[in-house]
Amino acid sequence: MIRLALFGAGRIGQVHAFNAAAQQGVCLKYLVDPVTSTARQQLAERTGARIVEAETVFSDPSVDGVIIASSTDTHADLLLRAADAGKAVFCEKPVALDFAYVTDIVRKVEASGIACMLGFQRRYDPDFRHVRERIAQGLAGTLEHIIMTTRDPAPPPIDYVQRSGGLFLDQAIHDFDMARYLLGEEISRVYAVGGCLIDPAIGAAGDIDTAMITLTSRSGRFVQMNNCRRAAFGYDQRLEAVCSKEVLSLGNSLQNNLTIGDARGFTRSPPQNYFIERFAMAYRLEMAAFVARLRNGETPLAGIRDGLEAQRLAEAARESHRTGLPVDIAPH
Amino acid sequence: MIRLALFGAGRIGQVHAFNAAAQQGVCLKYLVDPVTSTARQQLAERTGARIVEAETVFSDPSVDGVIIASSTDTHADLLLRAADAGKAVFCEKPVALDFAYVTDIVRKVEASGIACMLGFQRRYDPDFRHVRERIAQGLAGTLEHIIMTTRDPAPPPIDYVQRSGGLFLDQAIHDFDMARYLLGEEISRVYAVGGCLIDPAIGAAGDIDTAMITLTSRSGRFVQMNNCRRAAFGYDQRLEAVCSKEVLSLGNSLQNNLTIGDARGFTRSPPQNYFIERFAMAYRLEMAAFVARLRNGETPLAGIRDGLEAQRLAEAARESHRTGLPVDIAPH
Amino acid sequence: MIRLALFGAGRIGQVHAFNAAAQQGVCLKYLVDPVTSTARQQLAERTGARIVEAETVFSDPSVDGVIIASSTDTHADLLLRAADAGKAVFCEKPVALDFAYVTDIVRKVEASGIACMLGFQRRYDPDFRHVRERIAQGLAGTLEHIIMTTRDPAPPPIDYVQRSGGLFLDQAIHDFDMARYLLGEEISRVYAVGGCLIDPAIGAAGDIDTAMITLTSRSGRFVQMNNCRRAAFGYDQRLEAVCSKEVLSLGNSLQNNLTIGDARGFTRSPPQNYFIERFAMAYRLEMAAFVARLRNGETPLAGIRDGLEAQRLAEAARESHRTGLPVDIAPH
Amino acid sequence: MIRLALFGAGRIGQVHAFNAAAQQGVCLKYLVDPVTSTARQQLAERTGARIVEAETVFSDPSVDGVIIASSTDTHADLLLRAADAGKAVFCEKPVALDFAYVTDIVRKVEASGIACMLGFQRRYDPDFRHVRERIAQGLAGTLEHIIMTTRDPAPPPIDYVQRSGGLFLDQAIHDFDMARYLLGEEISRVYAVGGCLIDPAIGAAGDIDTAMITLTSRSGRFVQMNNCRRAAFGYDQRLEAVCSKEVLSLGNSLQNNLTIGDARGFTRSPPQNYFIERFAMAYRLEMAAFVARLRNGETPLAGIRDGLEAQRLAEAARESHRTGLPVDIAPH
Repeated sequence: MIRLALFGAGRIGQVHAFNAAAQQGVCLKYLVDPVTSTARQQLAERTGARIVEAETVFSDPSVDGVIIASSTDTHADLLLRAADAGKAVFCEKPVALDFAYVTDIVRKVEASGIACMLGFQRRYDPDFRHVRERIAQGLAGTLEHIIMTTRDPAPPPIDYVQRSGGLFLDQAIHDFDMARYLLGEEISRVYAVGGCLIDPAIGAAGDIDTAMITLTSRSGRFVQMNNCRRAAFGYDQRLEAVCSKEVLSLGNSLQNNLTIGDARGFTRSPPQNYFIERFAMAYRLEMAAFVARLRNGETPLAGIRDGLEAQRLAEAARESHRTGLPVDIAPH
Repeated sequence: MIRLALFGAGRIGQVHAFNAAAQQGVCLKYLVDPVTSTARQQLAERTGARIVEAETVFSDPSVDGVIIASSTDTHADLLLRAADAGKAVFCEKPVALDFAYVTDIVRKVEASGIACMLGFQRRYDPDFRHVRERIAQGLAGTLEHIIMTTRDPAPPPIDYVQRSGGLFLDQAIHDFDMARYLLGEEISRVYAVGGCLIDPAIGAAGDIDTAMITLTSRSGRFVQMNNCRRAAFGYDQRLEAVCSKEVLSLGNSLQNNLTIGDARGFTRSPPQNYFIERFAMAYRLEMAAFVARLRNGETPLAGIRDGLEAQRLAEAARESHRTGLPVDIAPH
Repeated sequence: MIRLALFGAGRIGQVHAFNAAAQQGVCLKYLVDPVTSTARQQLAERTGARIVEAETVFSDPSVDGVIIASSTDTHADLLLRAADAGKAVFCEKPVALDFAYVTDIVRKVEASGIACMLGFQRRYDPDFRHVRERIAQGLAGTLEHIIMTTRDPAPPPIDYVQRSGGLFLDQAIHDFDMARYLLGEEISRVYAVGGCLIDPAIGAAGDIDTAMITLTSRSGRFVQMNNCRRAAFGYDQRLEAVCSKEVLSLGNSLQNNLTIGDARGFTRSPPQNYFIERFAMAYRLEMAAFVARLRNGETPLAGIRDGLEAQRLAEAARESHRTGLPVDIAPH
Repeated sequence: MIRLALFGAGRIGQVHAFNAAAQQGVCLKYLVDPVTSTARQQLAERTGARIVEAETVFSDPSVDGVIIASSTDTHADLLLRAADAGKAVFCEKPVALDFAYVTDIVRKVEASGIACMLGFQRRYDPDFRHVRERIAQGLAGTLEHIIMTTRDPAPPPIDYVQRSGGLFLDQAIHDFDMARYLLGEEISRVYAVGGCLIDPAIGAAGDIDTAMITLTSRSGRFVQMNNCRRAAFGYDQRLEAVCSKEVLSLGNSLQNNLTIGDARGFTRSPPQNYFIERFAMAYRLEMAAFVARLRNGETPLAGIRDGLEAQRLAEAARESHRTGLPVDIAPH
């Protein structure tokens, strides 16, 4: 029996809790969340977890792993405590908003030797896996360039914007990670432009709502990302991997299989809304990967180092947007 | 130089006139239409044709072929006169509304030895050709059954309904022909149901607006046709040929390549509206085939005998609808 | 707590078992299956059910409902025993292969007053529900005719064919049910043709592999069904509901969202394979509906009477295929 | 009667010749091409044009307009001669490869007061028009950013590469033009990366085969262009205009309406191949626009100034690619 503890009873915490609890031979033993809420109570009841303080988790030798899905400002401290206690960790991204601090934390976590998996769920999505495997198996030929689109259905509330770390870190980080993952190499140059085209309140909060990013890889391949806080039809999550023998295009996952024909023409439904729904299977598979890591040491697809590298690209994009110039990333 | 004469300056006559005149080494010498109209006048001017009486056409030895695109009730007489005059004919379907009469005309035309091509333009449409060739080349495996859909954008005017010969003869005849063409064999049994579901005025005029037809071929293969006088989105013209190795699905030809994404989802344009537009290329190619017949004797894809056989199926469908029973078609 | 017992540890039994056990406040107490197998053992372990004899189930007053997913020849007896014991039943279709016998069983079950839901899971599929609701809400206008396609990925083994009851009863019954469900009225006439086009062994076993069926409803609306034991691309499950204001087309549910572009063109994946996968959500929702029936009396979408009526249409289709004539169904 | 003269009997010259000659009241009087070839001879015969020297064209007062479709290095001289002779011009892009020279020529042509239309046929394509009009009419809301894809089916021959002016000027110029056209304002900043990922011979010839370009408009809107000399499936010509109320996605124009279903899934045909086919209608409409300019002074959608501005962006992209830095474009 694998025993897990969860930090954070919010939306993504609930997803992880149910996915963990649904696995054979896995028990969600503890739930830690400082806020007394109905959600916390119900989550504990439905998963059989006990609501405790963090201390209980880290001092219980029967706990095999912890899932960190609490607010971003608590991630670093929990990672360090898990490292001290020798607990394997599944941590939601980002480790922290401040990059220098993240660098420091990652060094300490790595030094501790604990297993530390990062929540880049998109790597586990069957569609994205399919693209990756087709390239890896040589079916598609050489990957030459990638076009990625991520657009939210609508801008988040301004208070979320304020503590999100900004568009590059909050939203585009998954695309930065996917770029590295598909290319199988590091990025050497980042150019980003962006602005507030949707809502001036986002600009007033010091963020942007639209960005266009160009990445150049070490070996000279290219990635274009367009990131936006709105698409008129909902969540827009697509990718095109242009290879020498195949062009692999990942479309949106629609809500249903119905086409309505009327005087306007033929209408298909909007995409699944939103990432919780779109990546439901990916969340399930990444939690299974965490359990597989605990059970038999299988290396997960994304570790804490991947979080660091993706965040490095987000930092570079932010710098490029600020200065108007491309930013070089030295080998490190 | 190939010299042609056209009977009928209406909509389909104009299509044939321009397609004939646009061909290298082809001259549309005469235009015959009893009604003095601006359309007739303009058509003559734009194609360089002279407006004459039928007699002039049939007595001019320089005329190589005649295009019969006048009203249905004139087809038979013009066919007989062309047969007498030894002129090759391109004739719009049907030969006549009365089947016994058609049988008689076809016998006489065939006896005359003139070339007589029938206007089943769908056989020349590149999409339908593609299906046919894929089967003929063995790529698709054995053709086992066919599903065909023909729906008009909207019911025709009641006065058209009254002189159309009815849904089976007026609209479904193209599907009967395509069934024979794709199967490459004759039909042995027809079952048809139908009714007035769209407009009671059509029923009052003695016709139906919706029909479902089942064909069984001599060798025991099947065809399902659904024919209707309306589709909410416009002209609906599709076919599915189920073969042992491939399922060949012919979709509608849309007006443009634009997808509009908004809160309703993703909308593509309605189909091309209507057969004149949808089959523009088919009309061009069938007229080229008529000219090729005149020029070097190439057999066209549809002859007058095909018109007879398709009409036989329409007759059988009408009989089946009337009696409520399947109708057997004896080898003939 | 709702306590359930399951008969049958086969493929569909497992689906129901997990779906039942995954529900809050539901306990799968018993599992009955005469065959000692690893599958039975594992299913019991994973759902916490006890393996018992049928007698235990029917004599335990704490059992609220039974799920009959055992082989078809046991359905009728279990239904009668459940009726005697006053247990609510969820029963897989068909009740039995012999129609007269089914009529008798249904009468007895209905007389007993027990709740009896039938496994027409397609009624619970979100896509099909969407079609139904769009019509029910009046958005689509009047439903005028329906085209339905059901094709298996490949013919079943011959020993399955032999005890399946034949294509009409085994496969097409879901389409018969959907026709009644969408039309909201009974069918008055059935015409069916069919044959062995795929595999002569199916014919040798007394069955057909291809059928085309035409239904006429009491009020004079039409349904065309094409049913086949093979589609070259896999499981083919589509529907087109032609309404006065909208044409509602339900496409296949594909395996992924990837389009591969290469010299052949653009390729999308095959459909989900097979009904267990395609209707995974439908199976979940129908089991939830059974529990809702037990918990608060909500009427499920399909009762035992619907099983009888769908089977009546399958019988009529078989008769029509045998005689070559349409079969009238008198009001009953 | 409008009398035209054509310079250049090559592929695009032939397209213009037939489109010009097919118009009512238009006569292609002269054809000028220094190379004696079968193509030149046939074109003259089929359009009725006389093969003459340039002098004849410019000294014939009956010539209303000239079509310049000869090799790029002759464009400037012919433009100046047409300006001197007061002939209206339809000129293929680019005016010349050297930007400073182009600036000079444009100034002189504009000073002459002749009508001068540039061959940006994409502005006349019904699909692109549709996008433009939907935005212009306010249906789509505010245009915020654009993603454009242009990929050739395969790299051109190296000798073409050598005299093409390079990817930015030869291929991407149509996208630069479309960006300006859709945005309705000028570009203020260009960033381009590119490289040789397909064929090192292109690099050896001093060109690139892949480019990713980012444009920032004066008002702060963004465009991403990806340009490539190959797509595995053929000619790739797409655009996505992201607006506040609609996302307008222009897909490729496929060769046919057939979907082939087999074990691999569902395959649609490759796109139309290549620009001559894809933009057949656009070429027809732009020639009609040239005639309309001559006939009644209607302003065409693209003038010589648009050629200059698009080329300015190509120059900036080349500079950005060379220096690795974004290039600012001062108001001019």
